[in-house]
Amino acid sequence: MKLTVVGVGLIGGSFALAARRRVGAHVRGVGPEANQALELELIDEACLGLETSLNDADVVVVAVPADRLVEVTEQVLAAAPRDCAITDVGSIKRPVVDAAARDERFVGGHPLAGSANSGVVNAREDLFDEATWYLTPTEITSGVMLERVHNLLSAIGAKPTIVGVDDHDRMMAAVSQLPHVLANVLVLQADAALEERKIPVTGPSFRDVTRVAGSNPEMWTAIYLANAAALVEELDGAIERLTAARAAISRGDGAWLTEWQALAAERREALTEAGLSGGVLTELRVPVPNRPGVLAQIALGLCEADINIVDMALSPSLDGQQGVVALWVSEGSAPEASECLDKLGLPVL
Amino acid sequence: MKLTVVGVGLIGGSFALAARRRVGAHVRGVGPEANQALELELIDEACLGLETSLNDADVVVVAVPADRLVEVTEQVLAAAPRDCAITDVGSIKRPVVDAAARDERFVGGHPLAGSANSGVVNAREDLFDEATWYLTPTEITSGVMLERVHNLLSAIGAKPTIVGVDDHDRMMAAVSQLPHVLANVLVLQADAALEERKIPVTGPSFRDVTRVAGSNPEMWTAIYLANAAALVEELDGAIERLTAARAAISRGDGAWLTEWQALAAERREALTEAGLSGGVLTELRVPVPNRPGVLAQIALGLCEADINIVDMALSPSLDGQQGVVALWVSEGSAPEASECLDKLGLPVL
Repeated sequence: MKLTVVGVGLIGGSFALAARRRVGAHVRGVGPEANQALELELIDEACLGLETSLNDADVVVVAVPADRLVEVTEQVLAAAPRDCAITDVGSIKRPVVDAAARDERFVGGHPLAGSANSGVVNAREDLFDEATWYLTPTEITSGVMLERVHNLLSAIGAKPTIVGVDDHDRMMAAVSQLPHVLANVLVLQADAALEERKIPVTGPSFRDVTRVAGSNPEMWTAIYLANAAALVEELDGAIERLTAARAAISRGDGAWLTEWQALAAERREALTEAGLSGGVLTELRVPVPNRPGVLAQIALGLCEADINIVDMALSPSLDGQQGVVALWVSEGSAPEASECLDKLGLPVL
Repeated sequence: MKLTVVGVGLIGGSFALAARRRVGAHVRGVGPEANQALELELIDEACLGLETSLNDADVVVVAVPADRLVEVTEQVLAAAPRDCAITDVGSIKRPVVDAAARDERFVGGHPLAGSANSGVVNAREDLFDEATWYLTPTEITSGVMLERVHNLLSAIGAKPTIVGVDDHDRMMAAVSQLPHVLANVLVLQADAALEERKIPVTGPSFRDVTRVAGSNPEMWTAIYLANAAALVEELDGAIERLTAARAAISRGDGAWLTEWQALAAERREALTEAGLSGGVLTELRVPVPNRPGVLAQIALGLCEADINIVDMALSPSLDGQQGVVALWVSEGSAPEASECLDKLGLPVL
């Protein structure tokens, strides 16, 4: 496999190294850190120009900083071969998916991995081990391209998880951007409360909750604005919940507060445990028309029904008109998955 | 010194042990865990009744659960000797201070220490080493009693810090209760966002920010309600700040957001560093009229001027009409402290 990594920092460099070592991929890198990545033996070749790096590529991963993601992805789409899968690693998907609209080769990606120490020198082979890696195909995305990216991610040790573009962005607004905004609010609120009395503040809850306050201001401004629509909705929700809690405290409603506190405990446990699955797998084989989007349709359909696809493969038929998708799901969710596929008009063999 | 600990759990038991080992105090314990505390050699005597335990006591520490604090403190005040200092360890001070109103023997206390593992079996001598221990004297509090408690806390290794009752409660609302409320809001908001798609949530910011969500529902309901007035104010402030951030994100105001994010970074660093002091100490000697409240007046006056009192001692004159307070403050803050004492009408010798 020929892999091209555009932007060889912590994420791009780690991905390159894992692909070389675990898949035997031939990896080309391009970008300001490409020479350093070559010296560190993360990649096989450092290319000077984007076009050279894309020649004959099977997969391209765009791993540039967020503020250049849309621009570079457009350049890659213009220059990459016709049968090349293109993905990215941006933490917000709507802008780059829109930029790639009408291009069946593109599938948006977002690994939940990273490190406090950025830069190519901190790249390591195991950065994505067991890490959730979101993929956001659309109805335009080619099933073949989606499968190729999905398989590559599984092979390097990550856990690819398919989700809709807007669901992804809403989820990130709730679990990543909203915590950052609330951490800032807490710091500034505490600062105002302590204005006249500079006394030690050492509560463990305060330190935990504000750990992410004030993270890289330029980067986080870009993230807030890239996901503005979803984040504003989450902020409205948070304000509404705060207002309800304030009202309960104000009227001395102990019963409401105890129930609320207990609900938070229960939901936190459920959220923290979500994604822990495992166990015996079942293979489901589904004949499908050989057209773009059918694999994304299946993946999103099962995702909506809370069914996680652990692995999948697409086998086109010889005449190119029909194919068979093989899906592996947990044994327990197999009956529900079959039912769900029936409803999509794609009965299991 | 004769010390009585009412409620011998993690906090009371640790305090008893430290006082025995480090001050050579004779410690009596009372409460459901007193016998266990005696077996663990945390206390010298386990008393069956409150009155017996208070006989001839120099200092009483009330360390019962929050929901019984006011009731037990009232019982202790009714039964304790006339020249006995009484303090407590509750995390909210207004209710218990009000219950002890008009009693010069009482000074409210609140140690910033604890452990995930509660109960007397987890008590340890070093629990309060270097821990901030708030004291909230009022104008009624006797200087002699305040000094006795202050010295005992210093002697067991804690850092007593004097602060006004309402300032303490406002501060706790901002740095402890508000983080708990916001953590709950985040969990419930994320739960709603993920409602239809149970997918892994592993962002480190989400885990950090929600670590305290849903803590002991009964206990936290009691804490929220005990500090309702201050907490409602902090919630109003937080809602206002969230609304401002929402507006900036909604109108795409990158400049505002970058400045806001940078301010949060700067204030978090300042808050986290507050309380780090140390260095050379200077002694200030102040002649004072020998009346209740004068020591509290000095302590609160310096506290308002951001000056930390590292240690203090009160020496009454032989005729009982006048005394000298010795204060130790950092060398750098000594000139400002002198100026502040002048303004209070209590010039330094």
